[in-house]
Amino acid sequence: MTRVVAKFGGTSVGSVERIRHSAGLVADAAARGETMAVVVSAMAGETDRILGLAGEFGAGLGDAETDVALAAGEQVSSALMALALRELGLNARSFLGWQLPVITDGPPGAARIAGMDVSVLETVLEQGIVPVLAGFQGITGEGDVRTLGRGGTDLSAAALAAALGARCDIYTDVDGVYTTDPRIEPGAGRLEAISHDEMLELAAQGAKVLQTRSVEFAKARGVPMRVLSSFLAAGESRGTDVVKETGIAERRIVSGVAYARDQARIALLGASSRSDLAARTFALLADAEIGVDMIVQAQARTPGTVNIEFSVAHRDLDRAQALLEGELPGVDISSETGLAKVSIVGAGLRQRADVARSLFAVLGDHGISVRVLATSEIKISALIENDAVERAVRALHAAYGLDQV
Amino acid sequence: MTRVVAKFGGTSVGSVERIRHSAGLVADAAARGETMAVVVSAMAGETDRILGLAGEFGAGLGDAETDVALAAGEQVSSALMALALRELGLNARSFLGWQLPVITDGPPGAARIAGMDVSVLETVLEQGIVPVLAGFQGITGEGDVRTLGRGGTDLSAAALAAALGARCDIYTDVDGVYTTDPRIEPGAGRLEAISHDEMLELAAQGAKVLQTRSVEFAKARGVPMRVLSSFLAAGESRGTDVVKETGIAERRIVSGVAYARDQARIALLGASSRSDLAARTFALLADAEIGVDMIVQAQARTPGTVNIEFSVAHRDLDRAQALLEGELPGVDISSETGLAKVSIVGAGLRQRADVARSLFAVLGDHGISVRVLATSEIKISALIENDAVERAVRALHAAYGLDQV
Repeated sequence: MTRVVAKFGGTSVGSVERIRHSAGLVADAAARGETMAVVVSAMAGETDRILGLAGEFGAGLGDAETDVALAAGEQVSSALMALALRELGLNARSFLGWQLPVITDGPPGAARIAGMDVSVLETVLEQGIVPVLAGFQGITGEGDVRTLGRGGTDLSAAALAAALGARCDIYTDVDGVYTTDPRIEPGAGRLEAISHDEMLELAAQGAKVLQTRSVEFAKARGVPMRVLSSFLAAGESRGTDVVKETGIAERRIVSGVAYARDQARIALLGASSRSDLAARTFALLADAEIGVDMIVQAQARTPGTVNIEFSVAHRDLDRAQALLEGELPGVDISSETGLAKVSIVGAGLRQRADVARSLFAVLGDHGISVRVLATSEIKISALIENDAVERAVRALHAAYGLDQV
Repeated sequence: MTRVVAKFGGTSVGSVERIRHSAGLVADAAARGETMAVVVSAMAGETDRILGLAGEFGAGLGDAETDVALAAGEQVSSALMALALRELGLNARSFLGWQLPVITDGPPGAARIAGMDVSVLETVLEQGIVPVLAGFQGITGEGDVRTLGRGGTDLSAAALAAALGARCDIYTDVDGVYTTDPRIEPGAGRLEAISHDEMLELAAQGAKVLQTRSVEFAKARGVPMRVLSSFLAAGESRGTDVVKETGIAERRIVSGVAYARDQARIALLGASSRSDLAARTFALLADAEIGVDMIVQAQARTPGTVNIEFSVAHRDLDRAQALLEGELPGVDISSETGLAKVSIVGAGLRQRADVARSLFAVLGDHGISVRVLATSEIKISALIENDAVERAVRALHAAYGLDQV
């Protein structure tokens, strides 16, 4: 029998009715013969409520006591999910992170899963019991409670699936992974399958379906994932399989178009090409936990100097600029706001060096100028004006044949 | 240095402000040189909220999953209390039941503390850290979460005090134990000290200051307790010491007057004195979890027959009567409602056999008729009309000199 770990996020367990509906999806899968284990997030709003309480005492994410309080959220929802499954005639019981245990390392609020002892779960699965693991939590080797950071329940689910040799079904509010955002392009289609790498790039470029860390984990451990909707009736969500790459690349060049609004561009002009300016710049920003995205370095007109350009989220711009002006005196720093990033992602881009050129052409045909272009093995991103995002997404979606998916 | 376990109930940690105030009381005690450990309940309302959620899935107290969900309440408040103590400059950290562990036996929702490993707490106390234990919770030997039943945090605190060789300070919403309810008798006085036995009887007879189970535990293990207010400023609550009996009995005969409204009386008339009617009756009621309080058996006028009378809470009357009528056909069952119980409690009653008579006299002088009278070693209770409760409390309070306490 196929083993499946089904993960339900906060909105999927956000109320008594939502828990009951999600439990029904598990019961349906069990009735189809799948051996089920479940991982749950805290009920929607609960994590923010508890964070707010801890914040009143000056503690944020990163404080060990905040982790203790936060872990209570998944404790409640795991018990309720077990009860909901029992109401449907299944034998179910909850498991907290310390009860396996799920062993973590790394700091409070952003711990990593170092190991997971599933021997007790193997026993209960053999007994026909559906285990419901409280996601997002684990303990240190010394028995201190730790949480995995926002979205950590996806990671709990991927790790559990790896340990149990199971598929990892991520139930969310969408019916799978789409070629782009259907709110922008009504012709967006659901992908039957996508590779882990493509999923990673789509997530990194702005698609909010899956947590990057869980996909990385699943890729590294070869865990097949499936993205499904918890808002449809049982059997109605067909979902998207996130799988190893074999066989996908041949079918299409581009799998999806992603976008992220509210980007800003910072330019450092005319620095000496022999200086370690770029290295120092990105080290400073990393220390300040400012994410740097697209980076381009080019020869400047003045011989022996270079221009460095990169993008940051608009909300980080002021902080980044003040930091660099303080730490890099004498460097000519300028910035531009009101930008957005559009990206095309596809495993097939590896074989098609001409796609970057055609992307320029497509955007140019629609009167959209590209500020910065950056490419990775399976992704091409362009920094454009915020106002042009919707036109760009639709144009790229059509140009790469995604309307036919 | 004196070791003190300070217990704060739901209202004492019911909000950010209340937690901060309670933390201030701990900091004040620590500044006076007391070595502090803290035990907390869930924030007021949280236990009911979680019980309501579990109830939506048909699970009540007594279900193991309900225990998992409920224990989350104390998990949050213990972390917040640790943060509040840190805000005041103390070194503090939370401990959950499983982290000591607190080992329990007995059923979910009403577990008993079987043992408590405080070695980790001894270590942190030596390091000058204030441990904050999540009350009300423990685990089984197999690692399943259990709760101790309503008011179980008092029991957690008493058990922790016993294990640490500490005094157990119970912070509540009153400034100690009073000679009677000040809402009825404005002349009620705070008792400086009271014996465990007297406290037990006062609690059993209707005073709501302390949980009976925690006082029983404290008595058995010789733990001194103190009842204090968490609503006064530091140093303003003088409280009541609950101690071993030595020295208290000599000072006064009666320590307090308690009352409980809404009682009912059931009479089984003319049963054969040779039958096992009484035993069967009380076994039936115990199986149905109906608490039976005052019991009197007397010879009836018909030779060889007896009358049995006892009181139950008014809310249990219909259920008790239906049960007895079904199971004891042919027995003449009658009942009376609108009754209340007043009790005088005092260790000095042991030496004073005439007090029962004087209680009749005091109530008779005030035109209050006694339906049923029951005595224990240190308590005399009378079943009277509901309407007469306030007059009876005031009359007894004055007659036994409690106005002078």
